Amino acid sequence: MKSKLLLALLAITLTGTATAQVKPEDAIKWRQSGYAFMAWNMARIKMNVEGTYNKDEVVKAANAIQAIANSGMGSLYLPGTDKGTGWEKTRVKPEFFSNKEGVGKVAVAFVKEANEMAKVAAAGDAAATKDQFGKLSGTCKACHDDFKIKDN
Amino acid sequence: MKSKLLLALLAITLTGTATAQVKPEDAIKWRQSGYAFMAWNMARIKMNVEGTYNKDEVVKAANAIQAIANSGMGSLYLPGTDKGTGWEKTRVKPEFFSNKEGVGKVAVAFVKEANEMAKVAAAGDAAATKDQFGKLSGTCKACHDDFKIKDN
Repeated sequence: MKSKLLLALLAITLTGTATAQVKPEDAIKWRQSGYAFMAWNMARIKMNVEGTYNKDEVVKAANAIQAIANSGMGSLYLPGTDKGTGWEKTRVKPEFFSNKEGVGKVAVAFVKEANEMAKVAAAGDAAATKDQFGKLSGTCKACHDDFKIKDN
Repeated sequence: MKSKLLLALLAITLTGTATAQVKPEDAIKWRQSGYAFMAWNMARIKMNVEGTYNKDEVVKAANAIQAIANSGMGSLYLPGTDKGTGWEKTRVKPEFFSNKEGVGKVAVAFVKEANEMAKVAAAGDAAATKDQFGKLSGTCKACHDDFKIKDN
């Protein structure tokens, strides 16, 4: 009996991961926050390539996007977060939870271009930044088209 | 007259920075997003040092916090954002806008400990991560105590 209890406790510990302890409304809020913070940084890069180019500003923005892209936000799409409200009602489409291959494809493309964006920003060439910004934006749009419910 | 107009246009261009084009409600939403995304990553580090330690998870979380800490969020505290609503009503205290020296002090401490957190995470020692997590949390609390209106 005692060893059975220990095994049960061990199982609870092993499955008691970070993810399992997260409330759905927090998971939705946190992923909305990640996207909104990236939106700010995308806007900053856009303003720099369209206006006066400030290398330091672009590097900061690109590094933030890269770190968020690589943070493992996929773990915030827990079961039970297909509907619900974080900062606002989630706009994730049901397809996000059923089309794993499609989600994997857009996620890999996004992380690849976000990593490249940080490299290009560090090099400091405005024209190259503009090109890479276009590629990165394309990966955002690809995911939104397939997996995000449109604004009204 | 013509040269006066050109000078005026030049002045507009020079002051037409990224910051000047940002709407107050967006600035508030973006800064709330940065803090909320960091809160997720602080929670992840905490769960790792209190439960099963996963180095890769901690590195991702610490890198996200570091990049956000270094992103230049100070520029989101524009004039006119002392009151207003982003995702929710801002909880910044008026002191944030009047006590520049105090804000600078907590900001420098926060960035220092966030940078150190990323280094410690990369080294992968759970005990050192726990210590550094405590130091970093302390800098969050110091700013909240002085410059953030408490939850009710």
